[in-house]
Amino acid sequence: MTFARMWSDLAPVGRASDGGYRRFAWTAEDHVLREWFAGEAAARGLALTTDRAGNQWAWWGDPDTQPGIVTGSHLDSVPGGGAFDGPLGVVSGFAALDALRAKGVAPRRPLGIASFVDEEGARFGIACAGSRLITGALDADKARGLRDADGTTMADALTSAGRDPRSLGRDDETLRRIASFVELHVEQGRGLVHTGDPVGVGRMIWPHGRWRVELRGQANHAGTTPLADRHDPMLDLAAFIAHVRRAAHDAGALATVGKLRVDPNGVNAIPSQVTAWLDVRAEDESAVRAVLRALQEYAPAEESWTPVTVLDADLADTVVDALGGPPTMSTGAGHDAGILAAAGIPTAMLFVRNPSGISHAAAEDADEADCLAGIDALATVLERLLT
Amino acid sequence: MTFARMWSDLAPVGRASDGGYRRFAWTAEDHVLREWFAGEAAARGLALTTDRAGNQWAWWGDPDTQPGIVTGSHLDSVPGGGAFDGPLGVVSGFAALDALRAKGVAPRRPLGIASFVDEEGARFGIACAGSRLITGALDADKARGLRDADGTTMADALTSAGRDPRSLGRDDETLRRIASFVELHVEQGRGLVHTGDPVGVGRMIWPHGRWRVELRGQANHAGTTPLADRHDPMLDLAAFIAHVRRAAHDAGALATVGKLRVDPNGVNAIPSQVTAWLDVRAEDESAVRAVLRALQEYAPAEESWTPVTVLDADLADTVVDALGGPPTMSTGAGHDAGILAAAGIPTAMLFVRNPSGISHAAAEDADEADCLAGIDALATVLERLLT
Repeated sequence: MTFARMWSDLAPVGRASDGGYRRFAWTAEDHVLREWFAGEAAARGLALTTDRAGNQWAWWGDPDTQPGIVTGSHLDSVPGGGAFDGPLGVVSGFAALDALRAKGVAPRRPLGIASFVDEEGARFGIACAGSRLITGALDADKARGLRDADGTTMADALTSAGRDPRSLGRDDETLRRIASFVELHVEQGRGLVHTGDPVGVGRMIWPHGRWRVELRGQANHAGTTPLADRHDPMLDLAAFIAHVRRAAHDAGALATVGKLRVDPNGVNAIPSQVTAWLDVRAEDESAVRAVLRALQEYAPAEESWTPVTVLDADLADTVVDALGGPPTMSTGAGHDAGILAAAGIPTAMLFVRNPSGISHAAAEDADEADCLAGIDALATVLERLLT
Repeated sequence: MTFARMWSDLAPVGRASDGGYRRFAWTAEDHVLREWFAGEAAARGLALTTDRAGNQWAWWGDPDTQPGIVTGSHLDSVPGGGAFDGPLGVVSGFAALDALRAKGVAPRRPLGIASFVDEEGARFGIACAGSRLITGALDADKARGLRDADGTTMADALTSAGRDPRSLGRDDETLRRIASFVELHVEQGRGLVHTGDPVGVGRMIWPHGRWRVELRGQANHAGTTPLADRHDPMLDLAAFIAHVRRAAHDAGALATVGKLRVDPNGVNAIPSQVTAWLDVRAEDESAVRAVLRALQEYAPAEESWTPVTVLDADLADTVVDALGGPPTMSTGAGHDAGILAAAGIPTAMLFVRNPSGISHAAAEDADEADCLAGIDALATVLERLLT
């Protein structure tokens, strides 16, 4: 059973003692994951290519003769992330290819398996950096100058990882090879728990973005400054967090303050500044904008924005038909599939049931039987598209 | 003018581009500061000793013949701290000694200048670690096991700095050498601005402590978890910050949330936990306890506690008399002087006017004329005590 073997190969990479994962782009953990991908490709006799952004592609058949059907996802994680978000799609791609070969399917087009770099944006702050770079949605100069928490630029991180940062940029040669893209992903919510299905089909990705809010105060001694003389940005943070939740509730949107930076972050120092990051998503862009309007006194600075992504309706119909009518759904999570769809590539998504709905956390989970059902579904869809 | 020369020698050590200082115990910056102290001692022909905790002492006369009068302070800083908190007292000690010699004063007792290690506790979380160690107020085993933000223990930091961590412990030989201790410090507030005096005399140090509060939630995906299903500890943080301010106001105390840790601190992840540190001080311990009672639902865990310190009344009277009746004051800031006083050593404090009242920040300041007035006052007090 290649699924179980691949899953246990990946399990220890970047795993902390609490079970959470830390797999950031262009780190030692990322290098191990890239070597793993190359090894799986080689073991199957697939041709390995790496595009201008460093995304990895394993090809069965020659995509320069005619464009291929591509599946895949990513191997990186958020800090303290789960095992499934990303890796399930890559592992399922290899497992589905194995299933097609075992069944003796003779594809009439190439089949590709992709592993996108830096999907979570956990290190440099921009999600789906690998797919945004090759589609031109992320400017190469901007990307090279992004800094991680230690101040290392993406350019320096690439150089340290043995890559030439000058290679970043839109990659039309790679894009031309993709006729359609199908991404399988663990569900990040409990929609399939409610419908009672192991697998669902995506129709839409919610519009979503990230903003930065800077709350400035006056640093001072915690032991000697009278309350009335303080300009303590921690109090503004408290008001901001409460305001964000109220605005999200009122607009019917999701809004989250998940990341903070406190300067200087000393126990006995009133902070000079607190920086808060804001994530807002909703089914409609108007709801996202309503949240931002409600928070305008905080002057949120946009760090990234992804409009609504309606996945290819014809391809979704084909997928639903091939699978015998599974539930369809929209998702608030961004994916490389959404970036490729926005670049005009017909794209579909499959979701695998998540019992708790928890994601981006160590507790993220999926039953093995549901993962295997997902692989079956992916193989069925790929067979339909390849033959 | 030795004050100006010493001040400009110290100015660049550990200074960031915004003017704030980062001078943590047993770091490269600390090493430069220790070398500076040793150099000033050597230039004046003073005998340099280092006690079991690593505090430095420069002696004019032999304190093993009879106990001496000691002045001094510390050279370390909070993160983003000011230039004056600590260094002003050490520099003033050397400058006052120079003034006494220039005047031809013949001391009848030894004069010592001390530089205490790790007064701010910025690296290992316990303030006045150097003076607490030699008086036995901080247990050596506990100290050795304290960890900094990178997980380095104090024992390992000492070893890296070329010291033997086994040497930590109560140091009676050092304590026996101190007949009285006088610490000069920049005021951390505007009391002297209001009275219009360049120098004041301390009577009391407020009781003060630090507590840690752990707010636990459930990590999850920011883009897919409905608001109603969230257990987001960031909302608890907002309530806690507001609650702290209200409790401090109601009790007539000072309470500050200056330091936070968010796990995992990802833009698109609902945090699993937020840890907040709480600093509480008041003129009366009952007011501090009232704040903690108001916050008991958060189960604050005590990290350190220092009861009220009443400085030596006779010594304060002598100091006030020598200086011709300057204002006396109490302070909410902890000092090594307070630790020595609690250990039974007669102790006095002098404060130098701070125009903005700001401390623990780059904007901390004092006029040079006031610093020189402080040195004059210190020299006057030392002359009275030495002759």
